[in-house]
Amino acid sequence: MGQTTRQKKQILALNAFAADAEAPLPADVADLVARRGRNFGATSVLFYERPLHIVGAKGARIFTADGRSYLDLYNNVPSVGHCHPKVVEAVSRQMGRYNIHTRYLFDEVHDYAERLLAHFPAPLTNVAFTCTGSESNDLALRLIRGATGGQGIVVTETAYHGNTLAVTEVSPSSYKRGTPPAYVRAVPPPHPRHYGADVGAGFAAAITAAAQAMAAEGIPFAGLLVDSIFSSDGVYADPPGFLAPAFAAARAAGGMVIADEVQPGFARTGTHMWGFARHGVVPDVVTMGKPMGNGFPLGGVVTRPDLLQRFADAFGYFNTFGGNPVASAAGLAVLGAIAEDGLMENARVVGGRIVERLTAARARCPAIGEVRGAGLYLGVEIVSAGTGAPDAEGASALINALREDGILIGAAGPLGHVLKVRPPLCLTLDEADRFADAMEKILAA
Amino acid sequence: MGQTTRQKKQILALNAFAADAEAPLPADVADLVARRGRNFGATSVLFYERPLHIVGAKGARIFTADGRSYLDLYNNVPSVGHCHPKVVEAVSRQMGRYNIHTRYLFDEVHDYAERLLAHFPAPLTNVAFTCTGSESNDLALRLIRGATGGQGIVVTETAYHGNTLAVTEVSPSSYKRGTPPAYVRAVPPPHPRHYGADVGAGFAAAITAAAQAMAAEGIPFAGLLVDSIFSSDGVYADPPGFLAPAFAAARAAGGMVIADEVQPGFARTGTHMWGFARHGVVPDVVTMGKPMGNGFPLGGVVTRPDLLQRFADAFGYFNTFGGNPVASAAGLAVLGAIAEDGLMENARVVGGRIVERLTAARARCPAIGEVRGAGLYLGVEIVSAGTGAPDAEGASALINALREDGILIGAAGPLGHVLKVRPPLCLTLDEADRFADAMEKILAA
Repeated sequence: MGQTTRQKKQILALNAFAADAEAPLPADVADLVARRGRNFGATSVLFYERPLHIVGAKGARIFTADGRSYLDLYNNVPSVGHCHPKVVEAVSRQMGRYNIHTRYLFDEVHDYAERLLAHFPAPLTNVAFTCTGSESNDLALRLIRGATGGQGIVVTETAYHGNTLAVTEVSPSSYKRGTPPAYVRAVPPPHPRHYGADVGAGFAAAITAAAQAMAAEGIPFAGLLVDSIFSSDGVYADPPGFLAPAFAAARAAGGMVIADEVQPGFARTGTHMWGFARHGVVPDVVTMGKPMGNGFPLGGVVTRPDLLQRFADAFGYFNTFGGNPVASAAGLAVLGAIAEDGLMENARVVGGRIVERLTAARARCPAIGEVRGAGLYLGVEIVSAGTGAPDAEGASALINALREDGILIGAAGPLGHVLKVRPPLCLTLDEADRFADAMEKILAA
Repeated sequence: MGQTTRQKKQILALNAFAADAEAPLPADVADLVARRGRNFGATSVLFYERPLHIVGAKGARIFTADGRSYLDLYNNVPSVGHCHPKVVEAVSRQMGRYNIHTRYLFDEVHDYAERLLAHFPAPLTNVAFTCTGSESNDLALRLIRGATGGQGIVVTETAYHGNTLAVTEVSPSSYKRGTPPAYVRAVPPPHPRHYGADVGAGFAAAITAAAQAMAAEGIPFAGLLVDSIFSSDGVYADPPGFLAPAFAAARAAGGMVIADEVQPGFARTGTHMWGFARHGVVPDVVTMGKPMGNGFPLGGVVTRPDLLQRFADAFGYFNTFGGNPVASAAGLAVLGAIAEDGLMENARVVGGRIVERLTAARARCPAIGEVRGAGLYLGVEIVSAGTGAPDAEGASALINALREDGILIGAAGPLGHVLKVRPPLCLTLDEADRFADAMEKILAA
């Protein structure tokens, strides 16, 4: 963990605004930065050497106070598009009707629960609504610990699953110093670099070994928690199916599996509604967040009724805002937009175009390393032209150059050298070409 | 803790719909109840022997599918009134402009942060926005544990502070079986019944003893976490100032103090914006939730910059939806409504009328015991007419009778015999009289 922690410090610093940077800022930006420092203090993290002062957004476009328009390849929260009219209308309408907790009966809430659950395979038939992915993963940990009687959790080395105390413990990437507790073990992400050609078998063996190591220390195994596209680890999607041996290994060790769908869920991978479904597996618990309400705070846990029952026998649980009538209206509108706007297929086609363009560009741009991912969740390694070594500084420079060119994007991976492409799912082929053109232009310079 | 846990089971069962109840339900309600059971499973908790099927709400009124209108004395989430036009308008407008996480700069977010922080005394000058009270208390625990190096927390016996793993540990009322871990100690709430005439001194002594008991077991003290109106304990507000010795005791024991303002905050107590302010004390950390966005999921932690800095040195922290532009618009509208609608003064006057009416009614209704609280957060003990003993069954029967009479209300306290009066703050004097009249009518019958 020591190395991962050190490496992660680099990421946290990457692409963050530094108050002592020398570049002069426009007056409006400088004023907001100062106010932000006074009000938010140390937990404020702001993107870019020159932060953006945003005044509007639409589709895959973001508008700033200086009159510029940016192509948004970063934001997966407004997943069906910034200010999607269907979501705006649904939230506005329901806000004016009623918005209370769900200890009464409302049609909207149950319409949404059913529409959502229809996207899940048996035996995942129950949903508990929350407000965030963090709350979802926090509840999921309690569910599998309660059901297995275990405490030990296996995650990947640069995993991020949320911000509560319990979820931070299973998020190695959140530790700036120190390491997760003994009941959390991190394994490398599923890539041939770590496991050789048979990624599935190697990843599964690492999980087995981690569970056994905890058991040897008297820590019974509770299960495996994975973001099924390994976004913060650097985006690992292929080959489809590699998660099957991992799930089997976790279960053979007496554990259960939580699939964190905050990043890959809601059609982003282009062929399936959920990242786990690409791998032909069924988790015990599925957690959802970010894209679920297109920016309205909405999360959820979908699981087997027996797990919820075991938990409810021990603890009272209620989430005041979780899935309230307005949240449910937002969630219904998101599911409607995905279907009606054909966003899954769009993610497949447009994501495919980006992969094709950037792969072809490698011949002219040796800084582009591996291009991988699924649908509109892609990782693009930035490497040193000479050595092919990971180039985090190059990635950071590229991110800021793209920003100057009108394109917003971020980075991932333990070294921070993997461009993370995850735009609103309504990105067009023209916009994909615009991004690829900009990459070629900047990297050729 | 054993007794508290057993007692709490009664509360959890109190006023909850039981699927095996014999009363026949209208077809629409029966259908929704069945769907709810299928979709939500064991974590579903539904109010009332005959659940409400809600189709609208306005002010302090809730409308059901059978055409009835209910006076809402239960819901503190829509604190400035159900569907307050100012909040509806603000959310609708901002939803159509932009709604992203706060790693960019937006005017709305900083306008809100400043307007909110203006309500806090020095040295509480930083805010971290969250989505829920649970997330707020989870972060607050991490802040004071990080700052003190301690782990031990003192709470009250029937406290409820939220639903994450870490916050459930400090919420004795959430345990259906078992007890909180050794690093959490519960003390009786501040009432002469437990501490004699000098409630402040007694409560403080109990906190000192709990901290010392943990220290004796090798658990260093982190601090005191209190809901400053002790809502789930049964509502204890008087005399103002009784919290000062408690805060001093916690600090003398090396701990810090978290004031959980999810229940009393945002002007509800009628004379101050925050429950702690009534007591003339300044906490180290203040947590907010429910009423903050009038139903829009919004919470926050206000604290000293040094606590945030110490935390941020150790952990990355970011809350994706927390205080996003739409949440900030909702929060700003709530602060505006409190000021423009005169809701603090209204809470004082209308709450005072309820206390006056119910206190006067005791001569005719011996089932009414102690009437206590502040502003529009009141506790009304329901007791056996003969013995004066707490009467949880009587409270439950009264709650259901009031529901039949068109008034919604709930219960609190370890035995569940304390009616909890916490309506939207726009409740009128006529509505207060309507409630008092109904109480007298039902209790006289």
